[in-house]
Amino acid sequence: MTTKFLLPESELPTHWYNVVADLPSPPPPPLGADGKPATLDALAAIFPPGLIEQEVSAERWIAIPEEVREIFKLWRPSPLYRAHRLEKALKTPARIYYKNESVSPTGSHKPNTSIPQAWYNKQAGIRRLATETGAGQWGCSLALAGQLLGLEIRVYMVRVSYEQKPYRRSMMQTWGAEVFASPTNLTAAGRQILQKNPDTPGSLGIAISEAVEEAIGRADTNYALGSVLNHVMLHQTVIGLEARKQMALANDYPDAVFGCCGGGSNFAGIAFPFFADKAAGREVRLVAVEPTSCPTLTKGIYTYDFGDATGLTPLLKMHTLGHDFVPPGIHAGGLRYHGASPLVSQLVDAQLVEAMAIPQIETFEAGLLFARTEGIVPAPESTHALAATIREAKRCAETGQSQSLLVCLSGHGHFDMSSYDRYFAGELRDYDYPAEAIKDSLAHLPKFA
Amino acid sequence: MTTKFLLPESELPTHWYNVVADLPSPPPPPLGADGKPATLDALAAIFPPGLIEQEVSAERWIAIPEEVREIFKLWRPSPLYRAHRLEKALKTPARIYYKNESVSPTGSHKPNTSIPQAWYNKQAGIRRLATETGAGQWGCSLALAGQLLGLEIRVYMVRVSYEQKPYRRSMMQTWGAEVFASPTNLTAAGRQILQKNPDTPGSLGIAISEAVEEAIGRADTNYALGSVLNHVMLHQTVIGLEARKQMALANDYPDAVFGCCGGGSNFAGIAFPFFADKAAGREVRLVAVEPTSCPTLTKGIYTYDFGDATGLTPLLKMHTLGHDFVPPGIHAGGLRYHGASPLVSQLVDAQLVEAMAIPQIETFEAGLLFARTEGIVPAPESTHALAATIREAKRCAETGQSQSLLVCLSGHGHFDMSSYDRYFAGELRDYDYPAEAIKDSLAHLPKFA
Repeated sequence: MTTKFLLPESELPTHWYNVVADLPSPPPPPLGADGKPATLDALAAIFPPGLIEQEVSAERWIAIPEEVREIFKLWRPSPLYRAHRLEKALKTPARIYYKNESVSPTGSHKPNTSIPQAWYNKQAGIRRLATETGAGQWGCSLALAGQLLGLEIRVYMVRVSYEQKPYRRSMMQTWGAEVFASPTNLTAAGRQILQKNPDTPGSLGIAISEAVEEAIGRADTNYALGSVLNHVMLHQTVIGLEARKQMALANDYPDAVFGCCGGGSNFAGIAFPFFADKAAGREVRLVAVEPTSCPTLTKGIYTYDFGDATGLTPLLKMHTLGHDFVPPGIHAGGLRYHGASPLVSQLVDAQLVEAMAIPQIETFEAGLLFARTEGIVPAPESTHALAATIREAKRCAETGQSQSLLVCLSGHGHFDMSSYDRYFAGELRDYDYPAEAIKDSLAHLPKFA
Repeated sequence: MTTKFLLPESELPTHWYNVVADLPSPPPPPLGADGKPATLDALAAIFPPGLIEQEVSAERWIAIPEEVREIFKLWRPSPLYRAHRLEKALKTPARIYYKNESVSPTGSHKPNTSIPQAWYNKQAGIRRLATETGAGQWGCSLALAGQLLGLEIRVYMVRVSYEQKPYRRSMMQTWGAEVFASPTNLTAAGRQILQKNPDTPGSLGIAISEAVEEAIGRADTNYALGSVLNHVMLHQTVIGLEARKQMALANDYPDAVFGCCGGGSNFAGIAFPFFADKAAGREVRLVAVEPTSCPTLTKGIYTYDFGDATGLTPLLKMHTLGHDFVPPGIHAGGLRYHGASPLVSQLVDAQLVEAMAIPQIETFEAGLLFARTEGIVPAPESTHALAATIREAKRCAETGQSQSLLVCLSGHGHFDMSSYDRYFAGELRDYDYPAEAIKDSLAHLPKFA
């Protein structure tokens, strides 16, 4: 049996949901390097007014521009499925639903924010955007947005990914973006790192530093980020807003909602609209799932830290493992980030959102079971949310509880098959909790924090 | 502006359309190696009764089993789009529509036939299926079908593809299939080839010989083919049946329908249901698009020839370049076949279907333009149909004619990015018409033909 719940285009959300309106307390503001609240001028050097406004807004609903909605219609509303075949394989009384964000042109949820980011920049007369990318999901999505809206895109791609995942690079070029292996000789940050270590594999933190430096230095160029910031979480709420309507079509409501969590945009996207219900008194568990090897929410500290590795960004109050923490080389490249969304962090700190960590091999087991039952090969990031859902469904099988579980499939794994290959070959490992490295990086937190 | 035309699940076809019912004359029967009509016994050694019945049926409508329809619902009905952004880029008054078959779990139209083939084999008590694959689209689709319906799948993958496209192999393994680089030591056909030439890159013809040999030799094992045969064309008509309803939703009807053509299943899938209208007197052009380097329909002979390289299969009356013709190494691996569907061939011979050939570089130009306007990176096979559509749309721009053009996007290019890379690097070439090689292989046609 197959049951999918489709919304007509007329049900595509007209507004984004801003979780700030329902938080128990106002979000702590970003700080400058001096420990004082960051000025809007600092943000204006790299972001357009429309996005800065969203970044600091407390309005519950923010209208989605009509041109952005038109582009969303290329793949949205995305389908929600009842995972009958997975349930059967697990012999569980739980009802499992998955929201399928892999149907976008780039294969993940990232265009939900790349399109509006490009749009607001274009409105502000910006001609170029600089960004960083790790595994390439975000870089592809911004490349697509630039192509559709007529902006030039330059992507600093972490060198090790540039070499190991050449096809995400090809895809960015197909959509017309310029892609460089980071660190480059094009920026002071890049040159400084290369001088110290010409053979560095690069890191997301370094690539962010290069992109931000370029955006600060060029008037025609802004910076774009694929996660972490409030406006990115806002844009992703189209996922949960649609899912809430689709659960109603299914005559059901989730007992628990699962999303993978690196910077936090996929989790926020599926979970925040359900948080609105929770804030209004409805019982629903919201579970953010991260890798045990990069346990930001479960082992990090909730404090002020930099968003990048070298301290170019404002300080954000968030769960962090320290801005110079370098996570082990797990295959879920999108979850290898030292920090987390300030909004998600605040909700975890307030115990309104649960966080859990899952080791690598269990996530691949979950991905394989999902592929073999539901037919879609999931991205290694998505397998974290799937693994947590499967744990819960198994618990239901033991207790006989018939829970309703909703999980976000953030993307497909078409560009991650080499990771599945290594899993099949028995070459994957679980990493011990990197306690020493974290202790080290936490010692480098900004002093006044 | 984005306009997509979606059908509700209730509009998923309940029957396949059998073009044989509307042909001007009965299709010429398959022949044995002796030149006499092949017996059904010969077919029964490798195909189940349900599929043999469809292979020889002249019934106009054949019911789709309910369990097959349930699996189809994982991704069907597939969307039909109006390509506004492509039209704008071409400054054409033509209305371009594309049917998007890339939304299936394997990324192409192939599961439309792999699912029913696996189902009918299972009904017949068959436990295993053997098949061949070139680039891997078909192998992946049969692997998925085997996984969902509980059949073991063995895939003989052309060695050069096995080495060059490792991720399609990984995907087959993700869905539980056994995959071998062909030629292997597992079959007499494979051993014979390896003895002569241990370093052979393999070919589709050789891989077919290996899979057929295995199916003949094992009672629990049948053979499955992803194109060419009548029952495969039949299964693919779900594409055109849906598209016809979607064109009605758009209040339009195509002046011309374009599909890429290797073995013929994608073209037949989109075009045959419109042929039903043509047979009833409606004016509609049906255009099969092939590569100039493997010009089966445009330069081949309409005669009896083998389906495989070594003469294990029955003889089929079809357009052929000779069963031992080896096409140049173009990147549209799915179009590198010496023959073509007998049904498509008969319609081309009767001048009811047009055939045209397009050189490689033009197809990549078309693919890039499509990716940059409509957002989806197309497979190199699909770019042939797109290139033909773009030629027609440009002609409309010159003449001012406002034609309605329908094209099938047979699949996405996520596993073909290395081909796009070579295009960007200027390393692709157009092949001269391989006149000498074709003259040679046509000299080897079965003598009595």
